[in-house]
Amino acid sequence: MELTTTYESNNYPVIVKHQAIDDLADYTAHYQHVFLFVDEQVESYWSSKIQAVNDKQSNKIFVLPSGEQVKTLNYYEQYIEVLLALQPTRQTCLVAIGGGAVGDFVGFLAATLLRGVDFIQVPTTILAHDSSIGGKVGINASFGKNLIGAFHRPAAVLYDLDFLTSLPTNEILSGYGEVYKHALLQGEASVQSLESTYHNQAALLELSHIEQYLIEGIRTKLEIVINDETERGQRQWLNLGHTFGHAVEYQTKIPHGHAVMIGILYQMIVANELLNAEHDIQHYVTYFNSMGYPLHIIEQLSFKPLCQLMQQDKKNNQSGIRMVLLQKVGQPIVQTIPVDILEEAFRTLTLIVKETVYHDNND
Amino acid sequence: MELTTTYESNNYPVIVKHQAIDDLADYTAHYQHVFLFVDEQVESYWSSKIQAVNDKQSNKIFVLPSGEQVKTLNYYEQYIEVLLALQPTRQTCLVAIGGGAVGDFVGFLAATLLRGVDFIQVPTTILAHDSSIGGKVGINASFGKNLIGAFHRPAAVLYDLDFLTSLPTNEILSGYGEVYKHALLQGEASVQSLESTYHNQAALLELSHIEQYLIEGIRTKLEIVINDETERGQRQWLNLGHTFGHAVEYQTKIPHGHAVMIGILYQMIVANELLNAEHDIQHYVTYFNSMGYPLHIIEQLSFKPLCQLMQQDKKNNQSGIRMVLLQKVGQPIVQTIPVDILEEAFRTLTLIVKETVYHDNND
Repeated sequence: MELTTTYESNNYPVIVKHQAIDDLADYTAHYQHVFLFVDEQVESYWSSKIQAVNDKQSNKIFVLPSGEQVKTLNYYEQYIEVLLALQPTRQTCLVAIGGGAVGDFVGFLAATLLRGVDFIQVPTTILAHDSSIGGKVGINASFGKNLIGAFHRPAAVLYDLDFLTSLPTNEILSGYGEVYKHALLQGEASVQSLESTYHNQAALLELSHIEQYLIEGIRTKLEIVINDETERGQRQWLNLGHTFGHAVEYQTKIPHGHAVMIGILYQMIVANELLNAEHDIQHYVTYFNSMGYPLHIIEQLSFKPLCQLMQQDKKNNQSGIRMVLLQKVGQPIVQTIPVDILEEAFRTLTLIVKETVYHDNND
Repeated sequence: MELTTTYESNNYPVIVKHQAIDDLADYTAHYQHVFLFVDEQVESYWSSKIQAVNDKQSNKIFVLPSGEQVKTLNYYEQYIEVLLALQPTRQTCLVAIGGGAVGDFVGFLAATLLRGVDFIQVPTTILAHDSSIGGKVGINASFGKNLIGAFHRPAAVLYDLDFLTSLPTNEILSGYGEVYKHALLQGEASVQSLESTYHNQAALLELSHIEQYLIEGIRTKLEIVINDETERGQRQWLNLGHTFGHAVEYQTKIPHGHAVMIGILYQMIVANELLNAEHDIQHYVTYFNSMGYPLHIIEQLSFKPLCQLMQQDKKNNQSGIRMVLLQKVGQPIVQTIPVDILEEAFRTLTLIVKETVYHDNND
């Protein structure tokens, strides 16, 4: 399947298929240098596949520490100097092969090297169906995630589905968080389709029909980011579950998508409270719990530090903490939330989770 | 005088007048936070002026180390973390008050903080009539100048001519290098007008008519950058004198504009050699020498390390070192230059400078 963005100019293709990486040369032939950056876990599991790409289509390969740990200014400084030592030019292209962290990190290198060179995303996780699209790149700061970064579109996204077959359970669960979020933004039918296909964790881990849902997720995201690239308006919707989710992720170090699922629950409670929405919280808690998301972790957290982290969120303005709320499934809005409502929602979430998790796990 | 850019969207005003900084509130009123960054020398000389701005229109003031020394990843890391501690939002605006270095540095902070916040340029030097326009921002790497950066347009440029009255001789000379470069790009008449107004250093230091020449320089630059923001084509012309100039600057630490003047001479010699141009090298050597540019420094340098630095230039591609050459005054082109011609031009330049400087200084 090949999608193309529909910006006014500088569009890029999104190729979703098995062996997509074999087409890399079609997109890199005209560059002077091609430098591959590969997540160390991907490189170790897929070494012959990666080596074949490197032999044919690359001038140099860099193996990056796996996951979020690479997204620091220290690694940034190290790799930008290494790149500069190779005398890059504006005809240099960087290729990011890995999950969202590798894409964010290499994208930020590309955005700032010589004031911007091209880069190509080769996402290897389910989670990265989200992060590889739309041009958000960046690294973490001591104050929170992705606070240093840029908007820098990839020259192409080659989504090679082969890589998904080696994902560990936790990585599949985490990626499903963003797939589920895209369905919540799309509408009730999308959510029901997902829940019936992946009615339990075992069904999800088989990854049947995953290509269809990834493409639907990508389409949902593209629709939004093409209308609002720099997140002045509706792109904020994509932060559904992320305001509270990022805070939980930062505090607990659970995987991103797991934290987003908890953030989605939290947002439902806030929406019921503030907008008189009628989300069936119990349904979501039960489903997420049965899928294996670590909802119980909420019991170990306190509101105050989470609230401080939410105050760092990029959506905020002078009115306070802003959050995406679903009025109904498929109907997002962005609202400023009074702190007392945030605190109340935290208590409610803790209570419901306690009851459900305790009850279900003792059935 | 008020100019406005003519991009398709996101245009910004360029105000050139005395007391321009007093209008800052007109451009910052709608922001949630306004953070001022001021060059320490500017702050010390203009403390009451700066304090008045800070009292009325700012939430916080940062005094930056003067000049290029601030453009490092170390300072970048320090200040981006300090900014994040202040809980910035996308309604935060940074204001750069100083020369080109402060503008480049603060612009890069703004380009990468929360994936981009607004910034306003308040240039305080003649040199910064060039760097504050056009959205190039960045910092230096161990391999050369401005190799880490972005394109990020200012929200406004407030060029307060008051600040020019406190500039030391070297800073005026350095700024005049870019004014002169813009005239060379514009045409013979512009160059003659400059040379007759500023027929010697004393005339230049009086700064009479400087407003007119700064505005002409800004117009020349705007014409070019609006057609080619990201330097794929004619924006490269603005690098006239910079390929060799940056290398000399990096090796000798002489001021930027001084090095550009030497780079302009060098380029004239290359153009005569490669394009059969008919530049009167002796005329330029004599004029630049009489104005007080340190041409003699070329005698202390060797070709090889300069050539290595030129190989880092952002204009290069697989064909080799590329340089802007004037076929005639007002007629720039970008050419790949064979290394033997570069080396020959270096020898020629050294020889002419030796003869002229020795002769003129013994008259």
